[in-house]
Amino acid sequence: MGQIGIIGNGSWGTALAKILTDNGHAIHWWVRNEEAIKGLTNRHHNPHYLTSVRFMPETIMPSADLGYVLDKCDTVLVAVPSAYAQGVIEQADKSVWQQKNIISAIKGILPDSNLLLNDFLTSKFGTPIDKYISITGPCHAEEVADERLSYLTFSGLNDELTQAVASAFNNTYLNTTHNHDIWGAQYAAVLKNIYAIGAGIARALDYGDNFLSVYITNCYREMYRFLESHFEKVHPSNERPDFHTSAYLGDLLVTCYSLHSRNRTFGTMIGKGYSVKAATLEMNMVAEGYYAARGMQSISKEFSIPLPIATFVYKMLWENLNPSDGFLKLEKMMS
Amino acid sequence: MGQIGIIGNGSWGTALAKILTDNGHAIHWWVRNEEAIKGLTNRHHNPHYLTSVRFMPETIMPSADLGYVLDKCDTVLVAVPSAYAQGVIEQADKSVWQQKNIISAIKGILPDSNLLLNDFLTSKFGTPIDKYISITGPCHAEEVADERLSYLTFSGLNDELTQAVASAFNNTYLNTTHNHDIWGAQYAAVLKNIYAIGAGIARALDYGDNFLSVYITNCYREMYRFLESHFEKVHPSNERPDFHTSAYLGDLLVTCYSLHSRNRTFGTMIGKGYSVKAATLEMNMVAEGYYAARGMQSISKEFSIPLPIATFVYKMLWENLNPSDGFLKLEKMMS
Repeated sequence: MGQIGIIGNGSWGTALAKILTDNGHAIHWWVRNEEAIKGLTNRHHNPHYLTSVRFMPETIMPSADLGYVLDKCDTVLVAVPSAYAQGVIEQADKSVWQQKNIISAIKGILPDSNLLLNDFLTSKFGTPIDKYISITGPCHAEEVADERLSYLTFSGLNDELTQAVASAFNNTYLNTTHNHDIWGAQYAAVLKNIYAIGAGIARALDYGDNFLSVYITNCYREMYRFLESHFEKVHPSNERPDFHTSAYLGDLLVTCYSLHSRNRTFGTMIGKGYSVKAATLEMNMVAEGYYAARGMQSISKEFSIPLPIATFVYKMLWENLNPSDGFLKLEKMMS
Repeated sequence: MGQIGIIGNGSWGTALAKILTDNGHAIHWWVRNEEAIKGLTNRHHNPHYLTSVRFMPETIMPSADLGYVLDKCDTVLVAVPSAYAQGVIEQADKSVWQQKNIISAIKGILPDSNLLLNDFLTSKFGTPIDKYISITGPCHAEEVADERLSYLTFSGLNDELTQAVASAFNNTYLNTTHNHDIWGAQYAAVLKNIYAIGAGIARALDYGDNFLSVYITNCYREMYRFLESHFEKVHPSNERPDFHTSAYLGDLLVTCYSLHSRNRTFGTMIGKGYSVKAATLEMNMVAEGYYAARGMQSISKEFSIPLPIATFVYKMLWENLNPSDGFLKLEKMMS
């Protein structure tokens, strides 16, 4: 695994930096913003995200120089919003994506290509798939900051590397598991953001706890069928992973139910009648599920696996479907 | 289906009475308490539960005379806490349980026999199983009172009767589905109460949203495996029901997450160090999951299907296992 470099200093990148440095791994850290570098260097914390997290000074080496950070590391942890990932990747030397280990903490599809990061890297740079590992939740960054017990799943085809990376993250407040399901784990992470937007919309429309539980159940059934069909189409001879585990159902639950969930909050604003633009301005960020809703439309068609609930959410976000009308139709489809 | 009689006037019985009477079905109603009968007769509401629900005077016929109510009806809806069911059943003439249609709204195992209501009735009175229908959620009574959209699943072997009963409940705020899975649907309803006590304990122990979602995911996996194994042992040649539906996962979610959940509240008190006795006094009721935890131990052994999480909850409730110690062990079992 060697030296780790982290690309991105949002709340998720900061939480992952905390876990690694708590475990004694010094990190090179690409931080674009000079003020954040100053905060990290002088006051040993990120002044914009998870501000309560203090780093031991010797464990972090922040730098605004992407080339320098990438040069210094053997393993690159990519933790930028999916909407910015392609831009950052294209700034780096091509060889980086061919030679280094890549850990993806991106929870979305790259919006310009509608591809998962690994599929983008493989198609564009020939990244070897056995050097790629995805990290999936359930793991809201705010709870990592508080050291409340969380779980991460590491998915990769190279067992030795996957286990080495997982054990770099494992500690008293962080339990880790690993599997081979790079595609399924990431699709689950993408889908759950779309469904969480729907959960927020349902809340704003004043549906109660009973309906929310039915809605999430139906989302899980849709996710399960997608994962099952995708797996059978792409890896027909492999042993299917257990989708009744934390990276799949668990991450869906925390994203739909937790008040930490940005996607749910975004949905609540949409359900209250905010435009996507107004909600994005108010939150000062784009919710991952917004682009994911569009991206999964194309992936659903590519693999011929229908995603009716995700499609309703897509239409509410991108095609001006009135949320109340959409949910009146969804109500009838639930069981 | 004919004339319906309701046995029990707690919050769940009152919610079911509201649904039926809203749909134009007049009901005979066994109400033990004279004050409740007065309230229903004079002020058209139940003075103790769901007090906001007003009944049309001509739709309810409350009576303290169990024999009279049973005599007047063709279909008996049993909606008493499982701990009291056997006592009530034994007060009635044996022929009632042989001749009438029985709808069970009981969400528990009868504590003296560790049997589901249908198994108790069949073994003790020879009740024909095709006259038995169970009702399962997710459907907190408080949201029915507010007419917030809820879902009920009706399980029975007699399709005609099951559909007739389901359609008697179906309306604008109540969606109904039906299946054949009498045992599975009821076991799911029983298990979810046990798991919800665990969820309350976890909250009281200050676990966060990330852990709670992992805990519930692992509970669902355990429930799913139990239902799957039970179904294969008992009905090997039948088509297995879809457990990714509201009566199974949905009811688990609402019971573990909703603040309306009495079982979760009970668990929160246990997690804070209240004794079972003190928590029961404080809530003025026994949480269904308390006896269910014991009952499922015996059922788990009978069918040789392990229930490790439910067993930990059982030990916390019945064998003085310290909740913190129990959850420290559970943490390691989660994935």
